[in-house]
Amino acid sequence: MRTVVKKARSPSLQDEAIFLLRARIDAWLAEYVDCLDSKRIEAWPDFFEEQCFYTILPGENHALGLELGLIRCESRAMLKDRAYAIQKTAMFGPRDIRHFFGGLIIRDVRPDVVHAESNFLIVETLNDEMPRVFAVGRTYDEIKPAGDSFRFKARRCVYTSNLIPNTLVIPI
Amino acid sequence: MRTVVKKARSPSLQDEAIFLLRARIDAWLAEYVDCLDSKRIEAWPDFFEEQCFYTILPGENHALGLELGLIRCESRAMLKDRAYAIQKTAMFGPRDIRHFFGGLIIRDVRPDVVHAESNFLIVETLNDEMPRVFAVGRTYDEIKPAGDSFRFKARRCVYTSNLIPNTLVIPI
Amino acid sequence: MRTVVKKARSPSLQDEAIFLLRARIDAWLAEYVDCLDSKRIEAWPDFFEEQCFYTILPGENHALGLELGLIRCESRAMLKDRAYAIQKTAMFGPRDIRHFFGGLIIRDVRPDVVHAESNFLIVETLNDEMPRVFAVGRTYDEIKPAGDSFRFKARRCVYTSNLIPNTLVIPI
Repeated sequence: MRTVVKKARSPSLQDEAIFLLRARIDAWLAEYVDCLDSKRIEAWPDFFEEQCFYTILPGENHALGLELGLIRCESRAMLKDRAYAIQKTAMFGPRDIRHFFGGLIIRDVRPDVVHAESNFLIVETLNDEMPRVFAVGRTYDEIKPAGDSFRFKARRCVYTSNLIPNTLVIPI
Repeated sequence: MRTVVKKARSPSLQDEAIFLLRARIDAWLAEYVDCLDSKRIEAWPDFFEEQCFYTILPGENHALGLELGLIRCESRAMLKDRAYAIQKTAMFGPRDIRHFFGGLIIRDVRPDVVHAESNFLIVETLNDEMPRVFAVGRTYDEIKPAGDSFRFKARRCVYTSNLIPNTLVIPI
Repeated sequence: MRTVVKKARSPSLQDEAIFLLRARIDAWLAEYVDCLDSKRIEAWPDFFEEQCFYTILPGENHALGLELGLIRCESRAMLKDRAYAIQKTAMFGPRDIRHFFGGLIIRDVRPDVVHAESNFLIVETLNDEMPRVFAVGRTYDEIKPAGDSFRFKARRCVYTSNLIPNTLVIPI
């Protein structure tokens, strides 16, 4: 079931509380991205609720409301399995991966969950090569307040290319 | 006539009101960018005043104070014509276009208009190809408060390449 | 000696003062980037303290705690020398260079200095060529309040590629 409210207007731009919330989520996403870029993959699942949903799927599927994706995890335990696999079993050459995100929109604010979206840009640098744009797309996030920070209840990462990036070793 | 104040310092960084304004404009630009990226081109002219100015021009012309550009619209009605043309008559292969903007500067704040600038980065993904950086540049905007949101009085998009991006089908 | 606190959590996301500080630094970095992109190199050293440290170094060296870099300046006077060299003596073809930064993290706030980090992306456009991603990486900054603005006490720019970008004519 699609829970993303596509056509809704963002909450009023007059509302100061929304901007503080947006600023807090922006700062938290910056920490999330740094966790991935610095390859502290073991800390990655901690950004998610125990009961959560994480997927990376192509734009075509997302447009049709199909959740079938390259990666699909339905709990933090599954994310931990994947983190372990990335760190211990995956075979891939050394590379730097940088995540950029922009255009953050707070779509909907409910007492227990915030719906947010943003564009992402991933730049990959292989040893002895120039950097290249590896993937772009949009994330559709459901974010829960958790103490003085946040956790993902759901994160859907929709990439725009039909090409399956077969070297997608670090999550989005 | 050039209305962009190039050398002026931004308003004082001590002023909290400026940061709320900057945050509001940042959030509004995120909505603008999403309108384009999600190809809701029919809604694009609504981000502009009835009496407005929109242009996409090369850096060389901008540096000389010449307004001659790839696209030039002098009213919302002209933007609507262009939006209609993009949706109904233009021939182009399917592609995803993502806009990123950054480095937002509030140059000048007057009672009825805010001068703002930011860098833009456009990434294009053709079917079965990897994403590529399509265009970069800087926008020089005149933004008017409109109810609880904003509208462009003027938007000048200055791209850096001499190459005319002949597949520029989605506005900036 | 490495002064960057790598594993520390950012200051609490509940703290509103932190968000105003983050917003101010974000706005100031936007001015810094614009100074470089608009090639006002003579103004670049003014963003630094008299006693300061500036380096551009590869990720490999940074990971090992080695400060050896492509560029290394240990005072504003050295930055002025370099700015003069860029403007008066360096030979390079015309090009546009755009800096993007994202994922700003406020790592540590002390009475006289703020430790901040962010990712950077540099896009270069040569005459009659398409734009290309020239460099990506992360900056580790020590920032001092200075009047109603800021100045760098230290700025370490860590790029991810092993390739030495031999056309790095504009600073990061």
